[in-house]
Amino acid sequence: MSAIEALTKELSRLPGIGTKTALRLSYHLVKGTKEDVHRLAGALRRVADEVHPCPICGNYCDGEMCGICSDPARDGSVICVVEEAYEVGAVDRTGRFRGRFHVLGGHLSPLDGVGPERLNIAELEARVVAAAPKVEEVILATNASVEGEATAVYLENLLRRQGVRITRLARGIPVGSDLEYVDGTTIAEALAGRREM
Amino acid sequence: MSAIEALTKELSRLPGIGTKTALRLSYHLVKGTKEDVHRLAGALRRVADEVHPCPICGNYCDGEMCGICSDPARDGSVICVVEEAYEVGAVDRTGRFRGRFHVLGGHLSPLDGVGPERLNIAELEARVVAAAPKVEEVILATNASVEGEATAVYLENLLRRQGVRITRLARGIPVGSDLEYVDGTTIAEALAGRREM
Repeated sequence: MSAIEALTKELSRLPGIGTKTALRLSYHLVKGTKEDVHRLAGALRRVADEVHPCPICGNYCDGEMCGICSDPARDGSVICVVEEAYEVGAVDRTGRFRGRFHVLGGHLSPLDGVGPERLNIAELEARVVAAAPKVEEVILATNASVEGEATAVYLENLLRRQGVRITRLARGIPVGSDLEYVDGTTIAEALAGRREM
Repeated sequence: MSAIEALTKELSRLPGIGTKTALRLSYHLVKGTKEDVHRLAGALRRVADEVHPCPICGNYCDGEMCGICSDPARDGSVICVVEEAYEVGAVDRTGRFRGRFHVLGGHLSPLDGVGPERLNIAELEARVVAAAPKVEEVILATNASVEGEATAVYLENLLRRQGVRITRLARGIPVGSDLEYVDGTTIAEALAGRREM
């Protein structure tokens, strides 16, 4: 297999990248400078060799612990629970949350054989039980899907005994959207959760 | 910059890959096995270190010359001229062309400062002039764009003196398309090039 064929094969394994796109990317890389290609290869090796889950929250990190867990300015009394590591950034970039995170690594899905023991749930419980930092609120920010909701309900039952406040993200109309195009279930949730003006 | 941020930055330089896609790819790679990431990095390094233009036709290769130029079964009396290396595969995969190729490396574009000296045109002329293998036909398979046509006309004028047969790909209705959706210029070309049934 030629070098270009080998690269095309590897690139086409990536999600959302078919054979044609992979071929186009390969030729783009071949046409560019060697330095650019080496920098991309180096970035890949660095990710393979250095990145591992944060021992506290399960987010990916390349140091002893992740940037959020090691930041003393973050409020340790509130934990926002998300399914996947890339969702940490989605919440964090809003700038409206200064607490810590916990990454489950997926959602409960009995049909796929994913029970509580396959997720970072014991670690979450241990954080809530621990004396310091004292956790006062757990925000369940699992996805608004059937599995995400089921996971949230499971966690609520599990953590309620610890006397911690448990909340979840509001359901409602996405900002900027026309009511006409919002599905009925979302409008029903928005009605149920309506607030005084 | 964290390892994931660095990888995301490098991936988002690729054409057609925005920041969100790059982030998604980075997390996909982090979630996969180290071996997969190392294999992709290795394929990239191989491309950067080994791939270079074939000294005869200008196609990319990782050996002394490209697979087509080094194949004794290919007919050296016909040369198909394309603009870019990735177009060699498009013609070759049809299985209907058993001659050799020549890659120009672009098209003439005076406004962008691309004159004949910036393309592999002198090399093409040398191949046509050379005694062996004797070139009998040059197929101009430049793109059906204004620049591609202008490049073809330039090459025709240049090569005509060598007494070689010069052809170009037929213009016409793409196979499988409805006449209703084909543009007028293409229909006009198809009419002008109509053939006996």
